[in-house]
Amino acid sequence: MAKANKDSGTSEKRERILAAALRAFAQNGFYNTRVSEIASQAGVADGTIYLYFKNKDDLLISLFEDRMEWIIDRLSAELEAVEGDVLKRLRTFIHLHFRLAVERRDLAEFITVELRQSAKFVKEYENPRFADYLKMLHSLIDEGQRQGVLRADLDSRLVTRALFGALDEVLLQLALAEQPPEDVSDEADQIADMIIDGLLVRHDDSPPR
Amino acid sequence: MAKANKDSGTSEKRERILAAALRAFAQNGFYNTRVSEIASQAGVADGTIYLYFKNKDDLLISLFEDRMEWIIDRLSAELEAVEGDVLKRLRTFIHLHFRLAVERRDLAEFITVELRQSAKFVKEYENPRFADYLKMLHSLIDEGQRQGVLRADLDSRLVTRALFGALDEVLLQLALAEQPPEDVSDEADQIADMIIDGLLVRHDDSPPR
Repeated sequence: MAKANKDSGTSEKRERILAAALRAFAQNGFYNTRVSEIASQAGVADGTIYLYFKNKDDLLISLFEDRMEWIIDRLSAELEAVEGDVLKRLRTFIHLHFRLAVERRDLAEFITVELRQSAKFVKEYENPRFADYLKMLHSLIDEGQRQGVLRADLDSRLVTRALFGALDEVLLQLALAEQPPEDVSDEADQIADMIIDGLLVRHDDSPPR
Repeated sequence: MAKANKDSGTSEKRERILAAALRAFAQNGFYNTRVSEIASQAGVADGTIYLYFKNKDDLLISLFEDRMEWIIDRLSAELEAVEGDVLKRLRTFIHLHFRLAVERRDLAEFITVELRQSAKFVKEYENPRFADYLKMLHSLIDEGQRQGVLRADLDSRLVTRALFGALDEVLLQLALAEQPPEDVSDEADQIADMIIDGLLVRHDDSPPR
């Protein structure tokens, strides 16, 4: 009983620290944030943070993993709801990526800006959650190629990376915009059109999307 | 006479500091590099660096502006050499972007990784050189749209950002690859195909590229 209480208090305290870190990183940047500020915002003693996290880099990585898990769960659920058509699922993926900028602005800024400030994160951390995210996108491209809907002459890994880069850069712009966007579905549709259909004008009766 | 000597010594010393900073940032990251290490690698006294640069952030930004100017000059020259066809020029732009990863690996890593570690750089600096770079890409897209070669129903600014994001992400992968790539023309062609032609399989006689 005492143990159960302690466990639930533990996970609640951990989440409070993560939420405070997200706010602090988004506001002041990773390098300008001190662990003691996070502790004070989370309402815990400085030393408490080190019970959960080794150091600030570890806190950053844990925060990322935790939030990515949330994003991936949500993506999985939304993709599952869109049955069948792989192109529709690709569009759903793109829309959800951009909706982050509206619904979770601090998280979008964290992922596109602050995360990259940790050299450790960019160069050493293997990043299994991000790998999962890319895998979802990759498997959509692969599936489309297997079905003969997407062209198979392009390396699907390269396509996945380029597509992720396009999404990430536009998300960065949306996250940093002075006026937070209220609706990003138009941006999402245009990027989906650009990537799926390409930039060329078609002079023929192309198959409908 | 004495003045001319001093000026040329000045610009030579400034370049030595920038080159040392590029090496140091690429090796140890922006935040882990001390100004005194850059001074020692450049063979100048610590204080000398502050004659040229206000602080480490200023050094980073100056380094970026200087190198971007070099990239932009080279891009301009290569694009000018490819007359006429806007699609060919778009391809040339993409190829040159990736060739950076082969020819100037430390510069590619600096631009895709270290630069982002300065919050000041990402959030406060207006970045006129990067704006110039984007403007070159943007004007290619605009020109293609005006000529009726590229579809005009997509926002050319959004397309420019997405295309830059795709290029930047793939360059990042190439710059961080354990085995430095020797030839990236295949990657460049595939990304150009993907963006210009799109991912869809064509079941018709599309116009030749």
